[in-house]
Amino acid sequence: MPSYTAPHKDMQFILHDWLRVSEQDIPGYEDMDRDFTGAVLEEAGKVASEVLMPLNAVGDTEGCVLENGVVRTPTGFKEAFQQMKDGGWTAMDCDPEYGGQGLPYLMHTAAQEPFSSSNMAFNMYQGLTHGAYSAIYIHGTDDQKQTYLPKMTTCEWTGTMNLTEPHCGTDLGLMRTKAEPQGDGTFKVSGQKIFISAGEHDMSDNIIHLVLAKIPGGPDGIKGVSLFIVPKFIVNDDGSVGARNGVSVGSIEEKMGIHGNATCVMNYDEATGYLLGEEHKGMRAMFTMMNEARLGVGLQGYAQAEVAYQNAVHYANDRLQGRDVTGAKFPEKAADPIIVHPDVRRNLMDQKSFVEGARAFTYWGAHLIDRVHRADDKEADGLISLMTPVLKGFLTDKGFEYATAAQQVYGGHGYIEEWGMSQFARDARIAMIYEGANGVQALDLVGRKLAQDGGKHVMAFFEMIKTFIKENDGNEALKSDFLDPLKAASKDLQAAGMYFMQNGMKNPNNALAGSNDFMHMMGHVCLGLVWAQMAKAAMEALEAGASDTTFYETKIATGRYYMARQLPATSMHLARINTGADTVMALDAANF
Amino acid sequence: MPSYTAPHKDMQFILHDWLRVSEQDIPGYEDMDRDFTGAVLEEAGKVASEVLMPLNAVGDTEGCVLENGVVRTPTGFKEAFQQMKDGGWTAMDCDPEYGGQGLPYLMHTAAQEPFSSSNMAFNMYQGLTHGAYSAIYIHGTDDQKQTYLPKMTTCEWTGTMNLTEPHCGTDLGLMRTKAEPQGDGTFKVSGQKIFISAGEHDMSDNIIHLVLAKIPGGPDGIKGVSLFIVPKFIVNDDGSVGARNGVSVGSIEEKMGIHGNATCVMNYDEATGYLLGEEHKGMRAMFTMMNEARLGVGLQGYAQAEVAYQNAVHYANDRLQGRDVTGAKFPEKAADPIIVHPDVRRNLMDQKSFVEGARAFTYWGAHLIDRVHRADDKEADGLISLMTPVLKGFLTDKGFEYATAAQQVYGGHGYIEEWGMSQFARDARIAMIYEGANGVQALDLVGRKLAQDGGKHVMAFFEMIKTFIKENDGNEALKSDFLDPLKAASKDLQAAGMYFMQNGMKNPNNALAGSNDFMHMMGHVCLGLVWAQMAKAAMEALEAGASDTTFYETKIATGRYYMARQLPATSMHLARINTGADTVMALDAANF
Repeated sequence: MPSYTAPHKDMQFILHDWLRVSEQDIPGYEDMDRDFTGAVLEEAGKVASEVLMPLNAVGDTEGCVLENGVVRTPTGFKEAFQQMKDGGWTAMDCDPEYGGQGLPYLMHTAAQEPFSSSNMAFNMYQGLTHGAYSAIYIHGTDDQKQTYLPKMTTCEWTGTMNLTEPHCGTDLGLMRTKAEPQGDGTFKVSGQKIFISAGEHDMSDNIIHLVLAKIPGGPDGIKGVSLFIVPKFIVNDDGSVGARNGVSVGSIEEKMGIHGNATCVMNYDEATGYLLGEEHKGMRAMFTMMNEARLGVGLQGYAQAEVAYQNAVHYANDRLQGRDVTGAKFPEKAADPIIVHPDVRRNLMDQKSFVEGARAFTYWGAHLIDRVHRADDKEADGLISLMTPVLKGFLTDKGFEYATAAQQVYGGHGYIEEWGMSQFARDARIAMIYEGANGVQALDLVGRKLAQDGGKHVMAFFEMIKTFIKENDGNEALKSDFLDPLKAASKDLQAAGMYFMQNGMKNPNNALAGSNDFMHMMGHVCLGLVWAQMAKAAMEALEAGASDTTFYETKIATGRYYMARQLPATSMHLARINTGADTVMALDAANF
Repeated sequence: MPSYTAPHKDMQFILHDWLRVSEQDIPGYEDMDRDFTGAVLEEAGKVASEVLMPLNAVGDTEGCVLENGVVRTPTGFKEAFQQMKDGGWTAMDCDPEYGGQGLPYLMHTAAQEPFSSSNMAFNMYQGLTHGAYSAIYIHGTDDQKQTYLPKMTTCEWTGTMNLTEPHCGTDLGLMRTKAEPQGDGTFKVSGQKIFISAGEHDMSDNIIHLVLAKIPGGPDGIKGVSLFIVPKFIVNDDGSVGARNGVSVGSIEEKMGIHGNATCVMNYDEATGYLLGEEHKGMRAMFTMMNEARLGVGLQGYAQAEVAYQNAVHYANDRLQGRDVTGAKFPEKAADPIIVHPDVRRNLMDQKSFVEGARAFTYWGAHLIDRVHRADDKEADGLISLMTPVLKGFLTDKGFEYATAAQQVYGGHGYIEEWGMSQFARDARIAMIYEGANGVQALDLVGRKLAQDGGKHVMAFFEMIKTFIKENDGNEALKSDFLDPLKAASKDLQAAGMYFMQNGMKNPNNALAGSNDFMHMMGHVCLGLVWAQMAKAAMEALEAGASDTTFYETKIATGRYYMARQLPATSMHLARINTGADTVMALDAANF
């Protein structure tokens, strides 16, 4: 059975050695000193290891069961969910006015990783509630906020997001679900929604569905979509749970993974709904939560790679096969552990250097979101908007790739469900799809975000890299291992941007055919940047006489690996991009 | 539900336009004209589409069930297996002396693809029998051949390979299974074997297990391993099936995929075994079949990518989301099919150009094996020995990657089991692991095959590329799109080989740390070479006035895509290789 230990030291390193959070001038950050974040993360790690991890395989094996309109979650989920509520883990960054703890989003994000690593399917119940909370928090009336938020903060009531219909997901303008105004301010919502995670289950007293629907007579397409609150049980004026609403689960899907989360077909049959935000501005309401939601999915991607990596390391140290080619490491044993073999190490270093870079990138993203919300930082707003598709697309593509790579370390045992490595890969697979499939992320990045505000944000990103390289110009310890590769990769990325500018005008396909490559390139450059910065922070800690020299030296060595072995991918992506759309678009659709 | 249609035109193109099989001076090839191979492949395709494909999901859903020591295969498997036997599909390249059809291995290989695409788990039952047949055919006594081969040719009796034990797979020297000589020429075999595909089932009258075991008193390690025939039922002198032998199934594994194939733990308890080949030469006996077995697994890799690709194309043409950015393609519809979007095309072209190149590479490999066995061609022997790890490792890594990429085209539906795309990816995953995990293939390539016979074979491969480029020097249609990229990629590969030579001497880890990259590089160069040659063949067919111009033009365009978009990966792999072992081996095992 796989195990999980939260990587506290790595988390603390990012927060304090690199981001130096408690020194940042952001309201709420002043309390985030080493002791506080350490205590929180240690406790989160404990819950993850002791409560959630043992239920991960249970969730996968039992799955959710629909009987007579009721969804039964796997054995133990209910009790574990109660522990999450009791521990206040669902309320960390929620507004104290509604019972939350008011902590920074960064702190919430950091705590989410252990939960997601140890039991992704389980953690989605609170994750979706958090998303629905945010939507109501931002767009709800005072009355709506008072009605729903206190219960959603504690997860006594959970939440869902209802976007997809059988015939449309990415293109929501095609939506058919209708919301008829009743003249009393309420609406009757009718239609079918699919792929509704946590759409129905037995772990909360009410489920607050947020549903996109069209009000008849509104504008065509995406501009006529509004957002509605449709509770499973109508909430009485006194706040108590009242009559059952016209919403029911039609079926639950058999999926490749995340079996512990009920993915439901939801049927709305004249269900009472309450408009959230403005009429026909439903997509805008959705979009305001999108940066956080997508960052959260990016986190799921690397979190699965993290837990898979941890177990692969155990296996590689335990499994005896063959001998170190430079001489037996354990001559007294029948064979050496497979971690002596260069290709096993290459694989583990790929995983390790990705996961640690991905964590830093994600924390940085969460930190930018705090800057936006807590310090009204416009530049941070532009930057996180640019980074969001990269956080989501790159980290989930790579997260799945490395969860699969970790599975490979187990040889035949990796393919046997009992060993748990298959589940990590199967669970990680969904993150590439939901919350905007990764092709859509790449399109968002290249088709929208690059040119946003006149290209200001991507220029700021390039400037940030340039400044960092310049500021550390005389740092010989950083130069050849970190600064030079970063400079080369950044140059590749800029060249790709230039290609898009010069060739995308005459034919936008010249840019879009390279969108996936650009997203990956930019992901590598982001990880290259954070690795260079983390290496510097680690070197400074060593110079300052840090006692745990092994930790900091390992951090620097891992960064070196990333720069030497992963970052050169940018040149391949650039070569592909530079071939434009011709070969991509050459065939008639009939000739595929 | 997914569908499958065998790609006849592509198969015939490779056999006749490119390889020109019936013109080759190889005994048995003279009959392989267009009509004959067309008829065989059409019939194989029909069986695949009509009989095997409908059972693919059944096998996945029902799996195999072990009850009271008996394994029940999924509904319909037994009847389908009977159809395979009746159709003579299990006997194509077997020796006519034992009831086979004596066809070239290339013909057998070509027919295997549709079977494997449409139902990989099912096709393994005959695939493993074929492997066991070959071992007995090559190493058996006349008596053993007469006893077992006629029944194995028809799959009335099936076969298995028993190598792995719980504590050893790659390093078989650690093996514990014992074979005690009984003085009468027989042995008593005792021990436990795991991961035995088709180890027990209800589709044949007998199961002929080939078991690796150690004869007490023999040499230590891998040099003391012998191979034994251990039938499930002892065969009487008159050839009839007699008493049950001391072999039984302990359990069957719950796996990520290929659920339709029973993966068994086999317990041998003083089972009667017959030595196959010489004492202590069991590994050599295994190795003689290895090229074929590994080529067969490489085929499984691309075959899953092929069926996944076919379905992704259907979906991309059906699913309406968004609009062609250069102008609506179907203004009368609510949206355009997603195949208009550049990134969907990029994805489909990646899949298509890989699969068609992989098929050609595999046919070429099978053709080399025919050259070895039918024309005693020593150069072909050296070349296929070199290519085998690439065929297995590269085609299965990429096969899984592209089965996953095809799943991505389906968006959320790709994650739902009902749509079938998950199964293709899950089934494809095993091919990266069994028959020597891909890390072992990379090690075999770089640690053994490159230097084999003084590096003669890899030099011959480079020479082959050089000659092809030189011979076509004046061909302007080929030059910039095919010859130049091939030359650049081949140069990268040679530079990597040079790096290994110069740096592997002082530290073998400098070579082994780049083994995975080298395997992938070489795979790309092989596909680049076959694409350049296929493009030439297609151009010649067009010049000769071929009527199906669309087919040949599509072939050339697909090749162009590969050269422009896939082949540049070699530069990334070279960059990684050139960094050597330092960053890979930097950490102590304890610091991962």
